[in-house]
Amino acid sequence: MNSPANITDPLVLFMPSGKRGRFPVGTPILDAARQLGVYVESVCGGRATCGRCQIEVQEGNFAKHKIVSSNDHISPKGPKEERYERVRGLPEGRRLSCSAMIVGDLVIDVPQDTVINAQVVRKAATDRVIERNAAVQLCYVELEEPDMHKPLGDLDRLKLALEKDWGWKDLLVAPHLIPQVQKILRTKLPDQPEVSPGKWGVTAVVHRDMDSSRPFIIGLFPGLKNEAYGIACDIGSTTIAMHLVSLLSGRIAASSGTSNPQIRFGEDLMSRVSYVMMNPDGREAMTKAVREAVNSLIGKVCEEGQANREDIFDCVFVANPIMHHLFLGIDPTELGQAPFALAVSGALQFWAHEIDIEVNRGARLYTLPCIAGHVGADAAGATLAEGPYRQDKMMLLVDVGTNAEIILGNRNRVVAASSPTGPAFEGAEISSGQRAAPGAIERVRIDPETLEPKYRVIGTDKWSDEEGFEEESWTTGVTGICGSAIIEVVAEMYLSGIISEDGVVDGTLAAKSPRIIPNGRTFSYLLREGRQGEPRITVTQNDIRAIQLAKAALYAGVKLLMEKQGIETVDTIRFAGAFGSFIDPKYAMVLGLIPDCVLDEVKAVGNAAGTGALMALLNRDHRREIEKEVGQIEKIETALEPHFQQLFINAMALPNKVDPFPRLAEQVKLPPRKAAGAEGEAADASPRRRSREERAARRARD
Amino acid sequence: MNSPANITDPLVLFMPSGKRGRFPVGTPILDAARQLGVYVESVCGGRATCGRCQIEVQEGNFAKHKIVSSNDHISPKGPKEERYERVRGLPEGRRLSCSAMIVGDLVIDVPQDTVINAQVVRKAATDRVIERNAAVQLCYVELEEPDMHKPLGDLDRLKLALEKDWGWKDLLVAPHLIPQVQKILRTKLPDQPEVSPGKWGVTAVVHRDMDSSRPFIIGLFPGLKNEAYGIACDIGSTTIAMHLVSLLSGRIAASSGTSNPQIRFGEDLMSRVSYVMMNPDGREAMTKAVREAVNSLIGKVCEEGQANREDIFDCVFVANPIMHHLFLGIDPTELGQAPFALAVSGALQFWAHEIDIEVNRGARLYTLPCIAGHVGADAAGATLAEGPYRQDKMMLLVDVGTNAEIILGNRNRVVAASSPTGPAFEGAEISSGQRAAPGAIERVRIDPETLEPKYRVIGTDKWSDEEGFEEESWTTGVTGICGSAIIEVVAEMYLSGIISEDGVVDGTLAAKSPRIIPNGRTFSYLLREGRQGEPRITVTQNDIRAIQLAKAALYAGVKLLMEKQGIETVDTIRFAGAFGSFIDPKYAMVLGLIPDCVLDEVKAVGNAAGTGALMALLNRDHRREIEKEVGQIEKIETALEPHFQQLFINAMALPNKVDPFPRLAEQVKLPPRKAAGAEGEAADASPRRRSREERAARRARD
Repeated sequence: MNSPANITDPLVLFMPSGKRGRFPVGTPILDAARQLGVYVESVCGGRATCGRCQIEVQEGNFAKHKIVSSNDHISPKGPKEERYERVRGLPEGRRLSCSAMIVGDLVIDVPQDTVINAQVVRKAATDRVIERNAAVQLCYVELEEPDMHKPLGDLDRLKLALEKDWGWKDLLVAPHLIPQVQKILRTKLPDQPEVSPGKWGVTAVVHRDMDSSRPFIIGLFPGLKNEAYGIACDIGSTTIAMHLVSLLSGRIAASSGTSNPQIRFGEDLMSRVSYVMMNPDGREAMTKAVREAVNSLIGKVCEEGQANREDIFDCVFVANPIMHHLFLGIDPTELGQAPFALAVSGALQFWAHEIDIEVNRGARLYTLPCIAGHVGADAAGATLAEGPYRQDKMMLLVDVGTNAEIILGNRNRVVAASSPTGPAFEGAEISSGQRAAPGAIERVRIDPETLEPKYRVIGTDKWSDEEGFEEESWTTGVTGICGSAIIEVVAEMYLSGIISEDGVVDGTLAAKSPRIIPNGRTFSYLLREGRQGEPRITVTQNDIRAIQLAKAALYAGVKLLMEKQGIETVDTIRFAGAFGSFIDPKYAMVLGLIPDCVLDEVKAVGNAAGTGALMALLNRDHRREIEKEVGQIEKIETALEPHFQQLFINAMALPNKVDPFPRLAEQVKLPPRKAAGAEGEAADASPRRRSREERAARRARD
Repeated sequence: MNSPANITDPLVLFMPSGKRGRFPVGTPILDAARQLGVYVESVCGGRATCGRCQIEVQEGNFAKHKIVSSNDHISPKGPKEERYERVRGLPEGRRLSCSAMIVGDLVIDVPQDTVINAQVVRKAATDRVIERNAAVQLCYVELEEPDMHKPLGDLDRLKLALEKDWGWKDLLVAPHLIPQVQKILRTKLPDQPEVSPGKWGVTAVVHRDMDSSRPFIIGLFPGLKNEAYGIACDIGSTTIAMHLVSLLSGRIAASSGTSNPQIRFGEDLMSRVSYVMMNPDGREAMTKAVREAVNSLIGKVCEEGQANREDIFDCVFVANPIMHHLFLGIDPTELGQAPFALAVSGALQFWAHEIDIEVNRGARLYTLPCIAGHVGADAAGATLAEGPYRQDKMMLLVDVGTNAEIILGNRNRVVAASSPTGPAFEGAEISSGQRAAPGAIERVRIDPETLEPKYRVIGTDKWSDEEGFEEESWTTGVTGICGSAIIEVVAEMYLSGIISEDGVVDGTLAAKSPRIIPNGRTFSYLLREGRQGEPRITVTQNDIRAIQLAKAALYAGVKLLMEKQGIETVDTIRFAGAFGSFIDPKYAMVLGLIPDCVLDEVKAVGNAAGTGALMALLNRDHRREIEKEVGQIEKIETALEPHFQQLFINAMALPNKVDPFPRLAEQVKLPPRKAAGAEGEAADASPRRRSREERAARRARD
């Protein structure tokens, strides 16, 4: 198999990798793939029983590659492959690469489908694929039965067989398996591939996270075991999201979510830290709650994916720093006060059972590294998924929650910060704000002439000015404004001139429109009167101030990072997280929540943190990649930057007091700016208002 | 410190290692030692606070080495060393090598005492020392307090400090420590060395078993922690023996033993295997029993050694295969039947808590490898301790119990076997047999003229023929014969002509001595009549047969290994185990229990298995050494050797039917042999007797 190839040997090209080489006639395709580093799965070790190593011959004259490829250039099916086809079935055109041998020149396709493939297509909209190199490998071996002349222990002979057939050296064994080895080896199952006489056939689950770590036997099964799963999980303050994935095919078997039960201890992160500080058993109670929720969610994805939780052998978790600490049983108190010291920032490895995760007893658990005290493993996951450090474009990656995590960079340099946006974007602190749920207004448009609004409500397809809207919205009611609509209504109020660039509702418009209504010394905008039993929905001056404070905090953080990078504009923007998925980039930019950018380059990427966890689950190289990258990301602590306050004050204006938005202006008609001397304008503001903004800026910093 | 040494630099010689080198003036002695690979302990990392790095200057003209060494050639005590001396005290002549710098030529003594030393003197009689290279190292570091500008986690900064100061790379962390790190780092203890401003001082306990394994932080303590212990334990079927050792100084703090509580489930090994086979919860109950006994024994040695069990960080265990399996929670059933398959033969590593051992939560546990199904980790320990493979002499190492483990070899080749000697040597199956306890006869002499015996009893200093014996022995009574005395009385009966070389009591002597008394169709020897309430102690024909069967099994096993080695005689013999400690080599040889050898070369080595465990505890290189050696030892299964039966039959005779004992004959007057044609003699034996011996031989094989 390793005899040197001759210039007259057949030429074999593997697609889609494009790797090629010459191999002697009679070389199994699987061996050729291995020699070239082409990833083809195999559990049975070339015995034509697992069916994981399927390939297809591409027929035709590939002039560019000087290859005429044909099914005649591959050996016909032998008895083993025929038996597999008879017993298990083989799709048309598919061959088992362990049995099919090279006879002539070939173009071989390694199928990329989601059942038997070498890569997995991301569920999200982007077309990126994750190369697979899971930490877990299933290895079927046949080992000698014991013999008085050779007194090596059963487990030791198993290790020898794994070294001989699979090249595993220095194998360690998960302690719980040691008392089980003899029984497993001696178990005969029906319907299993035939084992050579005097031998036992078993499948070992081998886990190796790092090249510098010794590989572990973490599972052992009689006969051929042909499936292994992993979970990738993002623990958010509000929601826990999870993927269940086949580690052998890369297929996503199920994706689901559940709410974080820690909410009962405190709505936001800081209130949970407070709970720990005030209650002696608080940390333990919250750790228990989140672990139980994760275990329930595992049950849910296993049911959806028709998998057995005992077949889960690897777990990857991301979370914000406080969720990360609570999940791992670490007191998060230090994260609640300067200097916001993480107990541990690096990636960690555990046995899953050490964290009370109920999967296979030998399963491992990996947590991505945290970037800083307020920029967690979730931000690391998003960074891995979007990979600003993999490209030339200057990418801004923001994950907006009560705390916005901001990553900015390209392959030369990446900087990160967090900014305390507060809960306004999630609908809290807004008079008519509510969570995104049926009945919530999610889209708003305001006619600049009449100042009349139209809106859409979650659960209803029609716009409010369409016929039948009132009937259709009856079941859900119209109950409030969710986060994305708050952005839109404030931006539309600005675009229609209802509010000035300083965010002040223009009370003189009350004469023009009944929707401008006085509210003490300020004015509100009436979005909807409300039917009987429904609330009256208005946008108050205070609501606008809350949004201004939140967006100013985010923008000032972004701007600080842009200054660190020495750039005036960003090339591309990614919104991660649920908030980002529903937000309209145009309105975010009109509001000055994000810097000026070509609108097509602003994309929502969904749960990028979860995608990063998935990547780390399917390919351990991604673990090393993000560990290395996190070590190189420069963290900026906004609270320590004296310049932050001025940036914050500038960002209170819509879209900004000083920054131009030329690319936005090309696509959206912005209201005319006030006098060019914008900074002079700030000086004109009343002392009372200035001090209020400064207080807010200080609050955002502390 | 690493500047290249110049020919004019001072010459420094370290004793007792003899390593030498030139170092620039001003080099700390500790650095010089490290560069030469001389082991000098240090916990504080050169801060002159732990006092572990003490050395002495040897003054004088060392002409052989061309060194004039003087205390003037070492820098005077600086303020740090003076403070240490003032606070903690420094013995006369001692210096702290981290502070004392080279000024001129020096001969440096690294003290070998048991308080502060680099090696440990074995408690046993031999003068071998164990070079120390424990798996556990205490490393004091000072790490930066957290800083918002550098958001690395507390644990991650600790790792950085350990890498910077101690060279530890890729450190893993025991999971239980992760939630504790922040609290430990922030704990300030009174009476601790001063820490640099803005830093925290902690001591990490670092464990690395193998070079190919990543090192683990297994413990973490505020301030300077200056002691760490380990235990070395031998789990025997009858007795559990343990050493408690300082891993920093090598000092044995305590040694103790306890009886194995599994005895209540079965006296010998096979009855314990039977118990497991017959009782569904048998394995679990015995595992629990032995672990509880080990935990109690740890309490006992800690009390004796005035140590805290929380300060135990490493554990090494040896045991015979069945004890080994039961201790680790493995069902030993397979060891009770051919092919006697070990579940695992290789060395194993655990967290001690995984085996329910109650020491520090981060402590590790190592078990030596087993050699074969009947030759366990205890035999491996004895092999490590006595090291036949380290020398040119052909060494026979036997550990006699109900099952004898036999190792034979030298640096060229080592072979091993076990032989089922049965319980006769332990006093069972002997009419007046008993365990070695007060009241047991332990020494016997028989006057060849009068056939009158004299004996000594455990608990009484006098021989039975000395005045006052009867009074002195009154408190204990005279209750039976222990194992060593059984050997002696049978050998003395042979030497005095009471029994023939075939082991038959000569009934004709009844006329000459009243001590030869009829007993059915055979005769017995009356050793002691017994006072009122005491048993009459006799040696019956059946007793002699039981001893013959036991010694024949042992000798036949030895002889088989000698044949494998192609040798006629052995150079040196080691008796391991309690039985060996009390046996008189001369009588063992007269009986033909061991092959002919110069008597001075026959030595009892006590609990060599425990010594091997101690060596593996104090020096991880010994773990690799015995793992490698066990892989190379050739195991002979006596049951599979057709020749074994003949060897067994030959060995029934005293000392042997065919083997001469010339070297024994030089020192002991042996009875004249029967006709030279000894084999012809065997042919003369009655058919009935021959078949009886063959049955016994078969029994010994099965």
